Amino acid sequence: MSAIVTAGMVVIGDEILSGRTKDRNIGHLADMLTAVGIDLKEVRIVADDEDAIVEAVNALRSRFDYVFTTGGIGPTHDDITADAISRAFGLPCEHDAEADRMLGEHFARRGIEYTDARRRMARMPRGATHIVNPISVAPGFKIGNVYVMAGVPSIFQSMLDNVVPTLRTGTKLLSVAIASPHPEGAIGGPLGEIQKAHPETIIGSYPKYLDGKFWTEVVVRARSEEALRQAAGAVEAMLESL
Amino acid sequence: MSAIVTAGMVVIGDEILSGRTKDRNIGHLADMLTAVGIDLKEVRIVADDEDAIVEAVNALRSRFDYVFTTGGIGPTHDDITADAISRAFGLPCEHDAEADRMLGEHFARRGIEYTDARRRMARMPRGATHIVNPISVAPGFKIGNVYVMAGVPSIFQSMLDNVVPTLRTGTKLLSVAIASPHPEGAIGGPLGEIQKAHPETIIGSYPKYLDGKFWTEVVVRARSEEALRQAAGAVEAMLESL
Repeated sequence: MSAIVTAGMVVIGDEILSGRTKDRNIGHLADMLTAVGIDLKEVRIVADDEDAIVEAVNALRSRFDYVFTTGGIGPTHDDITADAISRAFGLPCEHDAEADRMLGEHFARRGIEYTDARRRMARMPRGATHIVNPISVAPGFKIGNVYVMAGVPSIFQSMLDNVVPTLRTGTKLLSVAIASPHPEGAIGGPLGEIQKAHPETIIGSYPKYLDGKFWTEVVVRARSEEALRQAAGAVEAMLESL
Repeated sequence: MSAIVTAGMVVIGDEILSGRTKDRNIGHLADMLTAVGIDLKEVRIVADDEDAIVEAVNALRSRFDYVFTTGGIGPTHDDITADAISRAFGLPCEHDAEADRMLGEHFARRGIEYTDARRRMARMPRGATHIVNPISVAPGFKIGNVYVMAGVPSIFQSMLDNVVPTLRTGTKLLSVAIASPHPEGAIGGPLGEIQKAHPETIIGSYPKYLDGKFWTEVVVRARSEEALRQAAGAVEAMLESL
């Protein structure tokens, strides 16, 4: 029996939608989840807008086992993720006593004023648990099946390193990539037949374009080694016959 | 009067969600739309799954002026975008006579067999108009306010170059970036006050982390030069006062 565990992601930030910042978190999360056998099924990038965040988080958390968010948890007026997630769950957004204490101590140790803006970073939905931030202390948080993390890639990655070992993981999707010297149009017919004959596998075909020539990367994925081996063998035999 | 024109994007492809391919089209579309004054409001990345594509496209096309899709228009069994878009619009998906002719001639000229797989690339919703593909001939298409384009970045970019001049554009959002040597926590309070005092602007605050130190990029955006100048001046004065 193979267990399937699914996830969604919500990327929060005007700066991604304007093109000013190029997202680097989607690909990292995708890699990390694939490595532990969790299927990322949908990603939404939304603006710094409370309604948009609430809608995206509620749509994805009801549909998938886990939802991961990035962005909008800093100390400034445009950081509204904690409020939006609280509203999505119908919970009050309030200063978390432990986060408040940690942040207060952190800034006191460095002789930095613990401003109201910095104190905003201790706000989260009532009952949320912390996600440790080894870089800049201000924690992310988990509420229900939603994990709220920073948008700065180095902090997001550190937080995620602490989250991944706590997740229920699925049977890993095994994969094998087969380089076809033939373009998609030459192999599309027989490849479709192989997909039909091997329903337990997912066969993807990715056109590659280099120096005016098309070739194809065929990727066979399956949760069973035997199914993978058989379908990959069929693809290789088909390519050799051309 | 400033005109606001909005857009959504749907990225179609298992390979993005698995992490195997890192998307490069979102950032490019964001840059291109920002340059002509169209606001990208939401992006969804969905799997090669007809239901998922239909849902995403229908959600975004009813909400925004334009929707742009990338991926899934090739010749193989996992290229299901034309079918999904047709279903989203309640239209038959059929071979377009002109696309069929162009593709047939293209392959004949090169002495390449025009396979059924290749002929799949001529399929589109009835009544769709072509988006020229200068690289590999197989056209994208436009139906209603939805623009369906290739996932291969070089082809996507060429198609988009042909689409952008045809779009209704809005009043461009002007922006100015101001580097603050202070971290967000030090400027968050006064910056929030400046945002309140300048409601016609959007003030974004982006934490930057370099060599163990935080600094902040403050970005002020507005559709009027005067509003931009005033808010940016207020931010600069605030930073100098710290």
